[in-house]
Amino acid sequence: MSHHQPIHTAEILCVGTELLLGDIVNTNAAYLSRKLAELGIHVYRHTAVGDNPTRLKHALEAAFAEADLVITSGGLGPTYDDLTKETVASYFGCELEMHEESLCTIRSYFSRIGREMTKNNEKQAMMPKGAIVFPNHYGTAPSLALCKGGKTVIMLPGPPGELCPIFEEEILPYLKSRRETVLVSKNIHIFGMGESAVESHLKELMTESKNPTVAPYCKEGEVRLRVTAESDCEASATAMCDEMIEQIRQSEVGAYIYGVDVGCLEQAVVLFLRERGLTMACAESCTGGLIAKRVTDIAGCSDVFLGGCVTYANEAKERLLGVSHESLERFGAVSEQVAREMARGVRERLGADVGVSATGIAGPGGGSPEKPVGTVYIGVSTAKGEQVRKLSLSSMRSREYIRIVSAGNAYDMILKCEL
Amino acid sequence: MSHHQPIHTAEILCVGTELLLGDIVNTNAAYLSRKLAELGIHVYRHTAVGDNPTRLKHALEAAFAEADLVITSGGLGPTYDDLTKETVASYFGCELEMHEESLCTIRSYFSRIGREMTKNNEKQAMMPKGAIVFPNHYGTAPSLALCKGGKTVIMLPGPPGELCPIFEEEILPYLKSRRETVLVSKNIHIFGMGESAVESHLKELMTESKNPTVAPYCKEGEVRLRVTAESDCEASATAMCDEMIEQIRQSEVGAYIYGVDVGCLEQAVVLFLRERGLTMACAESCTGGLIAKRVTDIAGCSDVFLGGCVTYANEAKERLLGVSHESLERFGAVSEQVAREMARGVRERLGADVGVSATGIAGPGGGSPEKPVGTVYIGVSTAKGEQVRKLSLSSMRSREYIRIVSAGNAYDMILKCEL
Repeated sequence: MSHHQPIHTAEILCVGTELLLGDIVNTNAAYLSRKLAELGIHVYRHTAVGDNPTRLKHALEAAFAEADLVITSGGLGPTYDDLTKETVASYFGCELEMHEESLCTIRSYFSRIGREMTKNNEKQAMMPKGAIVFPNHYGTAPSLALCKGGKTVIMLPGPPGELCPIFEEEILPYLKSRRETVLVSKNIHIFGMGESAVESHLKELMTESKNPTVAPYCKEGEVRLRVTAESDCEASATAMCDEMIEQIRQSEVGAYIYGVDVGCLEQAVVLFLRERGLTMACAESCTGGLIAKRVTDIAGCSDVFLGGCVTYANEAKERLLGVSHESLERFGAVSEQVAREMARGVRERLGADVGVSATGIAGPGGGSPEKPVGTVYIGVSTAKGEQVRKLSLSSMRSREYIRIVSAGNAYDMILKCEL
Repeated sequence: MSHHQPIHTAEILCVGTELLLGDIVNTNAAYLSRKLAELGIHVYRHTAVGDNPTRLKHALEAAFAEADLVITSGGLGPTYDDLTKETVASYFGCELEMHEESLCTIRSYFSRIGREMTKNNEKQAMMPKGAIVFPNHYGTAPSLALCKGGKTVIMLPGPPGELCPIFEEEILPYLKSRRETVLVSKNIHIFGMGESAVESHLKELMTESKNPTVAPYCKEGEVRLRVTAESDCEASATAMCDEMIEQIRQSEVGAYIYGVDVGCLEQAVVLFLRERGLTMACAESCTGGLIAKRVTDIAGCSDVFLGGCVTYANEAKERLLGVSHESLERFGAVSEQVAREMARGVRERLGADVGVSATGIAGPGGGSPEKPVGTVYIGVSTAKGEQVRKLSLSSMRSREYIRIVSAGNAYDMILKCEL
């Protein structure tokens, strides 16, 4: 059956005039590419076209000149210019028919959100004959797959808030079912060692190990290594991943690993404190609320996060945190001493187990020869003691980068502090 | 001369295997599209290909089947797989030659950052014969334009931190010089009225006015209207924009306009307070540091922003802000009374002119029938008095959305408070 032909290559084809006007950034293409890479499917092109059936048809033809699979996003909505389904059906020579199950789902979606369903929304339940229809619990456009002659098109709605969960819940299992083997991936999260250092320590592993594979991904100050193993069954693929992870833990990189499959640094901090029944508070100058903001991005953080102070002005450092006027005068706001007093002050004032602080020069102004832009002190205070880490980030870095890396170091120090 | 043929249509062609692996999101395509739309150039497709000269050449051929202009990003680096310049030159039948000026610039860049220049970096100064070379003050890859037979390619480096400023400083003037008329755009920033309401009030203007044009852009809780006028000279185009802006100010939308060309809400707040010589402080519960973080995203905000408190736990509200225990017990942390006391508390404790607060339920947990997820109180306190605004955002909205819109309302209340 054609549904079960293996898929090796793919193209991502995004549909929507708003992309071509630059109104929205195409995060779907990156998301889908990452997911397909994890399945071992090679993406060789991204294309974005407007809501224009002729161009969409040309794009489909061009895509299938090389790809086994085309994933589209967008153009499944209820309005007259949403034409992805119609265009793909015509490309495959299929007719559209009413899909009763989808119609029911759309009806119940509208009754759930308490809005009137229009005639247009019925169009969303029309499906090409022979399509596999995947339900959409996050909006009104069902997703679908259509296969013919070794070509597969998967059509997904454009909004990332719908596309991503549908991909996870429906498309990933579908694509996995079309594989003959099982793939398992695990992510090793590293902080404090740059991508090139990680690569040079693990060069042999990364270039020579074909199963599992080890691939690096990096963002500000962080590196993620994705370990992917292929096997006949999940248990053996998982075991292969675990063995590779253990090998990496034994390397020079090991000391910089803060977790496996923990999401992100702030998530790791929340889990770390929760497991130990501890609480934190933060005192921020140059990060200006970013340390608190990232922790409170995580729903349910309130059992470990008590609060914090953003003390931009020196007087705020004195009033809110009890930093001594003398320290500010003698050492300056950007100093080891002030970082220490800030961390201690916020811990004591909020009654937290861990206090963390950041004071520095995020730029672009405010630097001096002694304390150039990029000079940041991160402090951590617990009942057992205090540590301060000095960062000397390049002054050519952006304000945003300096703030993100400073917050990252604050989380890293929490994960490593004496408790 | 071919350089002066007008440009009507364009394609954005991004080069880089990291895009196809999903390691980075293609923000360049959206940025360039927005900029080209402002120049009246119609973008009809985005394509991303890997570091592969054959695919790049095919993509160029496909692009020029319809476009006058192709803008590439990426593939201008020093390594062997950076092949954009070579591939475009071969497509146009041009040879590469050493561009002495670029070589000097690259040399001085390396001496400025104190790093050794390698033989590879010299390759970056090789340019196709006849190319217009634009300097890069943000990295080592110069940008260039190549024109032949009515086709223009503009090649830009991939990192957005280089691409964006080079576009502003070099490419925008170049593209403007190729127009026969002058375009002037101004942005009207609106908060508190949704996109569909704005559109229904201004429907006639937006659909019928062809010069200036009025186009809406929206993000969480905010709408931006871009007014673009075309004329023989800048002065008359500016006057046409200003007249249209005045007309929109007179409409029902007028009351929701917080500025023209002010960047964003937090930027408007900083400018507003700076002009009046005033300072602010914030007290945050559900926004968890976001109000402070966005203000401190703005370099040089320290003359108006003193600091803030993130009081997630009730005890933190009492200890840091002096919110009364009785109010917390009687009305709950999410209440008008507590929002009021938080704003007042932070203003008094930091000695600020304006105190602003947010307390609410960002979800997904923590809601109740009386106070569902999305219930948020925003408070503002000045020497003249206090106001509290209650938000009832849909509980189907994400935690992130609820936090962003709450912060937006806090800024909006500062702009409208009694001073």
